[in-house]
Amino acid sequence: MNTPLYRQLAEHYLSAIQSGTLRPGERMPSVRRLMQQHEVSLSTALQLCRWLEAQGWLEARPRSGYFIRTPRRLTVLAPAAEPATVRQIDPAQYVGIHEKVSAIIAKGQRKVSVNLARATGAPELYPHQQLRQLATSLLRQHPTLLTKAISPGGNPELRAALAKRALDVGISTAASEVVITHGCIEALNLALRAVAHPGDVIAVESPTFYGLLQVLESLGLKALEIPTSPHTGISIEALELAMQTYPNIKAVVVVPHLQNPLGSIMPDSHKQRLLHLCEQHQIPLIEDDSYSALTNGDKIPTAIKHWDKTGNVIYCASLHKIIAPGLRIGWMLAGRWQARVSMFKYAQTRYNEELSQRMMASFLQSTHYERHMRRLRQHLQQQRDKMAEAVAAYFPPETRLSMPDGGVSLWVEMPPECSSQAVFDAALERDILISPGLLYSNSNRFDHFLRINCGAPYSDKLDDAMRTLGHIIANQQKRRAA
Amino acid sequence: MNTPLYRQLAEHYLSAIQSGTLRPGERMPSVRRLMQQHEVSLSTALQLCRWLEAQGWLEARPRSGYFIRTPRRLTVLAPAAEPATVRQIDPAQYVGIHEKVSAIIAKGQRKVSVNLARATGAPELYPHQQLRQLATSLLRQHPTLLTKAISPGGNPELRAALAKRALDVGISTAASEVVITHGCIEALNLALRAVAHPGDVIAVESPTFYGLLQVLESLGLKALEIPTSPHTGISIEALELAMQTYPNIKAVVVVPHLQNPLGSIMPDSHKQRLLHLCEQHQIPLIEDDSYSALTNGDKIPTAIKHWDKTGNVIYCASLHKIIAPGLRIGWMLAGRWQARVSMFKYAQTRYNEELSQRMMASFLQSTHYERHMRRLRQHLQQQRDKMAEAVAAYFPPETRLSMPDGGVSLWVEMPPECSSQAVFDAALERDILISPGLLYSNSNRFDHFLRINCGAPYSDKLDDAMRTLGHIIANQQKRRAA
Ligand SMILES: Cc1ncc(COP(=O)(O)O)c(C=O)c1O
Ligand SMILES: Cc1ncc(COP(=O)(O)O)c(C=O)c1O
Repeated sequence: MNTPLYRQLAEHYLSAIQSGTLRPGERMPSVRRLMQQHEVSLSTALQLCRWLEAQGWLEARPRSGYFIRTPRRLTVLAPAAEPATVRQIDPAQYVGIHEKVSAIIAKGQRKVSVNLARATGAPELYPHQQLRQLATSLLRQHPTLLTKAISPGGNPELRAALAKRALDVGISTAASEVVITHGCIEALNLALRAVAHPGDVIAVESPTFYGLLQVLESLGLKALEIPTSPHTGISIEALELAMQTYPNIKAVVVVPHLQNPLGSIMPDSHKQRLLHLCEQHQIPLIEDDSYSALTNGDKIPTAIKHWDKTGNVIYCASLHKIIAPGLRIGWMLAGRWQARVSMFKYAQTRYNEELSQRMMASFLQSTHYERHMRRLRQHLQQQRDKMAEAVAAYFPPETRLSMPDGGVSLWVEMPPECSSQAVFDAALERDILISPGLLYSNSNRFDHFLRINCGAPYSDKLDDAMRTLGHIIANQQKRRAA
Repeated sequence: MNTPLYRQLAEHYLSAIQSGTLRPGERMPSVRRLMQQHEVSLSTALQLCRWLEAQGWLEARPRSGYFIRTPRRLTVLAPAAEPATVRQIDPAQYVGIHEKVSAIIAKGQRKVSVNLARATGAPELYPHQQLRQLATSLLRQHPTLLTKAISPGGNPELRAALAKRALDVGISTAASEVVITHGCIEALNLALRAVAHPGDVIAVESPTFYGLLQVLESLGLKALEIPTSPHTGISIEALELAMQTYPNIKAVVVVPHLQNPLGSIMPDSHKQRLLHLCEQHQIPLIEDDSYSALTNGDKIPTAIKHWDKTGNVIYCASLHKIIAPGLRIGWMLAGRWQARVSMFKYAQTRYNEELSQRMMASFLQSTHYERHMRRLRQHLQQQRDKMAEAVAAYFPPETRLSMPDGGVSLWVEMPPECSSQAVFDAALERDILISPGLLYSNSNRFDHFLRINCGAPYSDKLDDAMRTLGHIIANQQKRRAA
């Protein structure tokens, strides 16, 4: 059977779109122009356009004609699968995640054209202008701010401002309980050092962000990876089983909201069950809440700490991803371990610099904060949508993806033949940095996953990068299948 | 025998001086005025003044008359004693230095009128104006400096500038070897974590700064205190003996230049012996060089790292005390442990904030740096002299003190009856904060010592505080002796 003429022409335009010659947002040649150029009838030219439109590659705009777009094929992609909660839990062991991560970081240190490995938004999405103004005016008001010894205990105004922000997630606390840290990562270090000793086992989500796995390894702790749903977070059943099997679990660490990398959000009922389970087994619960303020809509989810009546929850958070990725301001509420954590903080790094602390205090107290957060959430939502569309358009159809309810990244499951290390290497050759799934577990379980940053506004450059990634993955799939 | 009239009058003026009614630097009433006021002869008035002058309380200035001063009685004070190197070395043990330090820090958190507990200079002695200008111009040049994700590995310009500074202390290194840290304290944490495990024994100077004792305790390491000379630093003989006695020493930590609190500077020959001893026993040597740039004169002492050919020395330093006490920029060269330390740094706190790093890079590269250091050294020398004179004038005659060859503090040995804790408490009641000797050892060996900050320009307020301290100590001495 011969391919009809309109389809031949349509394929021609499709390959122009897929190669980037025609870009999303650009105008498609008019019907009149198509008729002239290819010497075809009006009906053929119209059929051509309607077919591309039906496939999702064109969009008709009233009185303006057709425009190129990437098809919204999300519904075509299968959502992420639930983990098997009955699978054998990996024996906790040292596996050298440090070396894996450092190899990846070292490779990624060269300047790349598109960095999709970050876990923050683009610099322009944050209030750089207000922060700059705050910095200059603080320096004017306090001429010796940079040369005066930092007063102990953390800046009181910042601690008060953070105690107030804690109300947003349902936590009522005193400023004096707030410990300021160098990012959430230092908070996690302090929390773990407070409750566990080298050789102890720590239950974590699987997959989980490699930063946590590194912290555990660097502290001589063993990660016990608990199956985690891309939709509802850590499996309470699997965790309960683990607690019965491993008597030496000394803490549970979870990211209940917009888990990195899954994007999952635990339902409130799960959070309460988790809290009670930990209390019952007298195992401290470390809650990493770095991302909750990036949840879609204006209602930030409630922290597990909200229900904590015994001080068994250590709450860790950060302003790094929500206000200023150039600053290292994290914070924590350490419950029963408050004194121990405060002293570790002092012995480890002393206090954060005054200027940054005061900038954050002023910003949090200003009306800019709420406005910024609302805008940031909206931008990120648009950007995630665009990136997801690109995944749907350019990645092989076997790709699986669930849309998270917020945050800065997508967790993409490639066809099972693909290796994230190989995709990482091939992408880097094309000047694109991605975050390979192999970093998110001490096992190889997630080696066919990628975490893709959605922090930057969608652009031709990003579109090119996503198309290139799609090619790389498809090639891998073919080669491995062969 | 009757006290002659001139002596009676002299005692009257002396008590006015000692009570602060007449202050150093003020003019003494003229001879003519004394004659009128006390209705005495010219010769009596002259005798009065000459006697006070002979005692060191007055200074004759040509054509201006007599001025009050505090007597330069330093030669009267015995210098610090050498430690007994053959004494029994304390069994390494947990003694709760954390609790001691936190109790002291907690008490000292209230606002005091005179803070003599610091280990930095006054804010005005540092280049606040240049730093402010640098900050503002960096923010102007790089509008998103505060909101851009920090690039991994530390700012390249700062690393290069520090590699260049390392030449000042005789170390030739590459920028890529420099690890930027949150102050020297983080460098020490990383160094110790790299070479030792909980339960290991670390040899340290005795006395040593409490920050180090806290780090050891917080990491589960045991401090083995080695007798240390106030003049030449750690006793190599005692250390050698310790190495033979304790097979599980996993590192030696020394502050070879302007040791905190002693102020001692190791002779080069000692440094080389120490280096070889450590190499021979295959024990890593951690060199804390926080203060060397504050040594009198323009020749900074040579770092032990200079002679290190095997990478066995981990060099730790900081800009906190020499350029900007409001910033937390430290750095280190980790020798054989470079990779391990870099990864620990990443896992512990990620990287320092970009703005601070760039400020320091620009400042170090500017001509301001050398000029600032020269001025700072001169100011500190004057201030130490003034404070030492005050100790000589106001503290009991049994007080011992050796003048350090630089730095920001004096290590004062009170009469043996005194307790630094009691002096701390009494001083705090009078709104004066001092650093009690009990913090500088896990034993009680230094409880009759105080570390006194000399960071601020001498003033009436400081003079009052020193006089008050002198009273407190004298009272203690009397009460305890009774
Ligand atoms: C879940 C989670 N926790 C903590 C961190 C580290 O946060 P910070 O940059 O505030 O140290 C990250 C960063 O990627 C993260 O994803
Ligand atoms: C000898 C010594 N090392 C390290 C430190 C800590 O230095 P930084 O403030 O750079 O962390 C101090 C501070 O008192 C010190 O005296």
